[in-house]
Amino acid sequence: MTWKDIEAERGEMVALIVSGSVEQHGPHLPTGTDLYIAMGIADRIASLPEAGDIAARLVLLPPFFHTYAKESDGWRGTLNLDGNTLTLVARDIIKGLFRQGIKRAVLLNGHLESYSFLLEGIELATEGCGDVQVISVNWWDFIGDGLIGELFADRWPGWVAEHAALTETSIMLALHPELVREELAEAGFIPQPLPYKIFPQPQEVRPPSGMYAPAEGASAEIGERLISEVLRNLVPIIRERFR
Amino acid sequence: MTWKDIEAERGEMVALIVSGSVEQHGPHLPTGTDLYIAMGIADRIASLPEAGDIAARLVLLPPFFHTYAKESDGWRGTLNLDGNTLTLVARDIIKGLFRQGIKRAVLLNGHLESYSFLLEGIELATEGCGDVQVISVNWWDFIGDGLIGELFADRWPGWVAEHAALTETSIMLALHPELVREELAEAGFIPQPLPYKIFPQPQEVRPPSGMYAPAEGASAEIGERLISEVLRNLVPIIRERFR
Amino acid sequence: MTWKDIEAERGEMVALIVSGSVEQHGPHLPTGTDLYIAMGIADRIASLPEAGDIAARLVLLPPFFHTYAKESDGWRGTLNLDGNTLTLVARDIIKGLFRQGIKRAVLLNGHLESYSFLLEGIELATEGCGDVQVISVNWWDFIGDGLIGELFADRWPGWVAEHAALTETSIMLALHPELVREELAEAGFIPQPLPYKIFPQPQEVRPPSGMYAPAEGASAEIGERLISEVLRNLVPIIRERFR
Amino acid sequence: MTWKDIEAERGEMVALIVSGSVEQHGPHLPTGTDLYIAMGIADRIASLPEAGDIAARLVLLPPFFHTYAKESDGWRGTLNLDGNTLTLVARDIIKGLFRQGIKRAVLLNGHLESYSFLLEGIELATEGCGDVQVISVNWWDFIGDGLIGELFADRWPGWVAEHAALTETSIMLALHPELVREELAEAGFIPQPLPYKIFPQPQEVRPPSGMYAPAEGASAEIGERLISEVLRNLVPIIRERFR
Amino acid sequence: MTWKDIEAERGEMVALIVSGSVEQHGPHLPTGTDLYIAMGIADRIASLPEAGDIAARLVLLPPFFHTYAKESDGWRGTLNLDGNTLTLVARDIIKGLFRQGIKRAVLLNGHLESYSFLLEGIELATEGCGDVQVISVNWWDFIGDGLIGELFADRWPGWVAEHAALTETSIMLALHPELVREELAEAGFIPQPLPYKIFPQPQEVRPPSGMYAPAEGASAEIGERLISEVLRNLVPIIRERFR
Amino acid sequence: MTWKDIEAERGEMVALIVSGSVEQHGPHLPTGTDLYIAMGIADRIASLPEAGDIAARLVLLPPFFHTYAKESDGWRGTLNLDGNTLTLVARDIIKGLFRQGIKRAVLLNGHLESYSFLLEGIELATEGCGDVQVISVNWWDFIGDGLIGELFADRWPGWVAEHAALTETSIMLALHPELVREELAEAGFIPQPLPYKIFPQPQEVRPPSGMYAPAEGASAEIGERLISEVLRNLVPIIRERFR
Repeated sequence: MTWKDIEAERGEMVALIVSGSVEQHGPHLPTGTDLYIAMGIADRIASLPEAGDIAARLVLLPPFFHTYAKESDGWRGTLNLDGNTLTLVARDIIKGLFRQGIKRAVLLNGHLESYSFLLEGIELATEGCGDVQVISVNWWDFIGDGLIGELFADRWPGWVAEHAALTETSIMLALHPELVREELAEAGFIPQPLPYKIFPQPQEVRPPSGMYAPAEGASAEIGERLISEVLRNLVPIIRERFR
Repeated sequence: MTWKDIEAERGEMVALIVSGSVEQHGPHLPTGTDLYIAMGIADRIASLPEAGDIAARLVLLPPFFHTYAKESDGWRGTLNLDGNTLTLVARDIIKGLFRQGIKRAVLLNGHLESYSFLLEGIELATEGCGDVQVISVNWWDFIGDGLIGELFADRWPGWVAEHAALTETSIMLALHPELVREELAEAGFIPQPLPYKIFPQPQEVRPPSGMYAPAEGASAEIGERLISEVLRNLVPIIRERFR
Repeated sequence: MTWKDIEAERGEMVALIVSGSVEQHGPHLPTGTDLYIAMGIADRIASLPEAGDIAARLVLLPPFFHTYAKESDGWRGTLNLDGNTLTLVARDIIKGLFRQGIKRAVLLNGHLESYSFLLEGIELATEGCGDVQVISVNWWDFIGDGLIGELFADRWPGWVAEHAALTETSIMLALHPELVREELAEAGFIPQPLPYKIFPQPQEVRPPSGMYAPAEGASAEIGERLISEVLRNLVPIIRERFR
Repeated sequence: MTWKDIEAERGEMVALIVSGSVEQHGPHLPTGTDLYIAMGIADRIASLPEAGDIAARLVLLPPFFHTYAKESDGWRGTLNLDGNTLTLVARDIIKGLFRQGIKRAVLLNGHLESYSFLLEGIELATEGCGDVQVISVNWWDFIGDGLIGELFADRWPGWVAEHAALTETSIMLALHPELVREELAEAGFIPQPLPYKIFPQPQEVRPPSGMYAPAEGASAEIGERLISEVLRNLVPIIRERFR
Repeated sequence: MTWKDIEAERGEMVALIVSGSVEQHGPHLPTGTDLYIAMGIADRIASLPEAGDIAARLVLLPPFFHTYAKESDGWRGTLNLDGNTLTLVARDIIKGLFRQGIKRAVLLNGHLESYSFLLEGIELATEGCGDVQVISVNWWDFIGDGLIGELFADRWPGWVAEHAALTETSIMLALHPELVREELAEAGFIPQPLPYKIFPQPQEVRPPSGMYAPAEGASAEIGERLISEVLRNLVPIIRERFR
Repeated sequence: MTWKDIEAERGEMVALIVSGSVEQHGPHLPTGTDLYIAMGIADRIASLPEAGDIAARLVLLPPFFHTYAKESDGWRGTLNLDGNTLTLVARDIIKGLFRQGIKRAVLLNGHLESYSFLLEGIELATEGCGDVQVISVNWWDFIGDGLIGELFADRWPGWVAEHAALTETSIMLALHPELVREELAEAGFIPQPLPYKIFPQPQEVRPPSGMYAPAEGASAEIGERLISEVLRNLVPIIRERFR
């Protein structure tokens, strides 16, 4: 879009910011997986018939690639901002939107560990700004337990272990099959998950493959089901909130 | 303790930092509830027979009272640090421990929303510090689903709604019954929980009582069971890690 | 207090923030001495008959334990925030009070070295906030030279050397005798005080005991006299200012 | 790339970071123009036969989209980080590379106003890091005056006015003709450039179109010539420096 | 000036802030050269007959000595603020002026590398301040190419190499001949200038003398011509803008 | 000095940094008084016969003009850095000295309110720097009570009220009589000093003249006596410490 396009439509615009991570995602998924997934979901909103007029009003902003994934710092391919840097990035960009007269935004997040820092950025940007509204979303919060049960039954490791595993591999197979090296998706030895964290992170708590659960059984079809579920639950909310 | 006591024992010491919040906790619990609970658990570790020599080596530091509870900012009685301020507090104090020759610490956290900012503080303090070790713990992560099922069955609202509700009220009844005004523990209207966040937080998503789930059925006995469960699971880990 | 209590009374409330330090205080006083003293004074205000209605309106906030005592960094038991971190803590909490509709606060400080950083926090919080008022107080500034002369005569080392010495030991004996190990209160060798500072602080300027003046002659009775003097001078000011 | 790919090759890797801006670029170019151009140049390096082994060793990192273009803040479509935020982003990511064992990087910059803040980020990241090397590049510094004279003769407005004008329009026509709306490339009234800056920027110094010079005569062919010139001059330097 | 003088005149005042650097300037010029030059120009404005009433209204503020010259960090005599520190200095002082009711300021800069950080300081100070106006100026931007051609012809190395060379040496000879050791102004070996930067800066790109171009031919007379040109072009702008 | 001079002598150099303020100093003294005084003292050290070889080794750095005088913010003519900005300035410059191989520095301070922020800057710069040494000095700490008694007897208001009063006026008369407008040195109404601070500072605590004590009786002769006393006490310390 040119600045004139934005000038013309900004009163109605809803900015859509996608946030991912640059982080190891097992031997079979690219380090940008979290962004690819969130971006893929964002792209589909616009082409969804049910999106109605919101499809035209949503403007996809350049995404936040680099975020905060320090739990993966021990593997290659992870690049992180400090927590405060990420907060400042989110604050500056969202304040920038408001300064431009774009008062509504959705942050679609694809990486849990960044979330608090992003929320703080939104807090700092919206505080005392009056008539603005920002919605923040983790895509996985829009997938019901029912669907998870139906798709994975007792193979489900819980969301917390779902890194480079069933859901992410499936969605990547649906969105970017060319980037998935399924033949390498071998979780191998997975240490018992700990209910606490140790700093500095010792080798012993790290699965050598980078996968916290197996990806066996992942498929593009499952990926499509998951994406559809997110869209089905998320899009009406955006429509409703930004009517 | 005097500085001479610390001088004598610091090689063996394990610093125990408790982090709470100053945050609305419904009409019946004090705003310091998160700290009272974490502090109560910390106090019991030392007197636990099973704690063995770790009981003597654990030194309880002044706690972090003021943390980050911006989701409760819309009720009176909540006081917050910015996320980065909290990170800096944690970083400075933990670096201070290392500078003093105390190289082992446990952070016992009582409030979820602060957690990422505290972890980042530990990251910044431990990075490149070599031979140090910090363990961070949320007390609720040491309560098994089995006990929750046994105690609450289908009244269980999920941990995410457990603010000023069953577990916190029970533990406060066990630890500080004089601070609980049970007669006021009326949850009242509770809005449907949303799977996303809105900024600025609108009135409509806030339960007027400040409770996200009812506290009915809470009791000191349940509180004791919960505390015991935490201690039973947590203390061996501390012993093991800091042998 | 619960948030409802605060809601009900906040218009009239005067927040009372106590600031201490975690700092070596000689071989006989706990590292939390500065906070114990300021907190003890704060506690007594409320029970003072002369306090009148202000007693009911003062609400004691969780204190600032960790502050700035870098001159004591060379002894064990000292934990510090960086100066800017302390400023941010004070700024955030005082801004939080204003956001909550509590527009009057007293900061009661128990450690000189922190003072400038606390004042800057208050400056940053109050700037452009209109109708708010914060009073900052060092307790020793309310003790007249007359009383000092009467109590200590020529044993008085000057306020600047009064660290773990006559006044602090006396007040601790009045407030928390169980925490004072009088038998260890041996100042030992005290280097000549320098009219300047050296960084990094060399061993030679540090008294091995951590005491900059002897505590001989300290007593609970003297402590009571000192506390009474502070209260006698301070309470009318708070009443007057926040009428 | 997966983390295993990076693990395998990181010793030889040269990270390539592209930095752009989100900034008005006249009525005919997209707001992401600076990034599209720098990214287009970066992409071509790898496919260049003359690049030799460096082509295989260069790894394109996720780019810096949001940077610093406050001079364009008065038009719609510009989003900025504060200067310090941009510095922190560059510092964190480059330090992250070093932590990962990737010790060589090229920053390819597409927007002048960001440059000092990016350089400071590199300074902070490299200071005291020993055996690392980062090269920073503005693409236009690799276009000789000779070619400029040949291509534009006296239509050349000087690099400082080259915003959404001859060179950027030409290169966008070469790289992304589908994103250029040539029919709208009307510079219109252009205020006399001032040899100083005024804050806040007054309306009178802003060309209404957002163009500081006309784009007439821009062509894909010229764009190709410019890109080739950059590559011809830049690639040997990267090869030489990171042999 | 006393505060009462300022009180009386502040409505009409235009603050003049001079910014220099503490940076190597070859073997013959003092490290404060950038400040001496900018200060010398500032001093002459006031005594200029053409300055009219602006001469009386301009108030010279204490200058910014320490700024940002990290490219010279490899020679002795260079002292730098971090980029963000410099931004904060500029922000604080300019906000201070506004708080004092002085709403017009000129920043006269003598060192290019600082410029972006100073501009960001002005941005942060003026944002949302309404009726204020700050002008920022590099003195060399007021010297026309015509004069350069006339004075230096083909000895002109370009502004970018003009560090401790023709213009700076000439102006210093005009302003402070006693500080110039002409006999030492030997440029010696000058490495080929690179169209990019390398971090950390390698020895090979540094001219051993600290001069990026020869100073031969510099003279006080040329210095006077240059200063006059700056004043002739700059003063009418200040008069016009702050009428 | 040129960079080559510094190169030659830096091993032996002792950097001398003078810190002042830009702050109202009553109706008769310039706003730069604190710097003029500290600078005047610094200048005399070098010409003192008793200074011995230290005279040649001391190098006067560009001073810190702008510091922290927020208590005077309510009068015109005061310009302040935030506390943290001042800390960063001191940290950056002192770290810069160390990087340059100049490992010894004296900070000579002329304004009390800045002192803590400057000390923190030195702390941050020296921490973990090994073999460096910085001495920080307030000039008034080198004036004995004996001389004060002899010079002022019962007219002495105490150091805390000594702003634009007896000592500062006297020293300015000794150093810069042309900048003192003695005829205006009328303290006028002085409010009773408060043993506490109020934020925002109310009008009622401010003396309308800006003077906290009368300057009557100040003289150049007294000024000379004070300067001599400072030098007599300070110079041997510098000699001794940096032998």
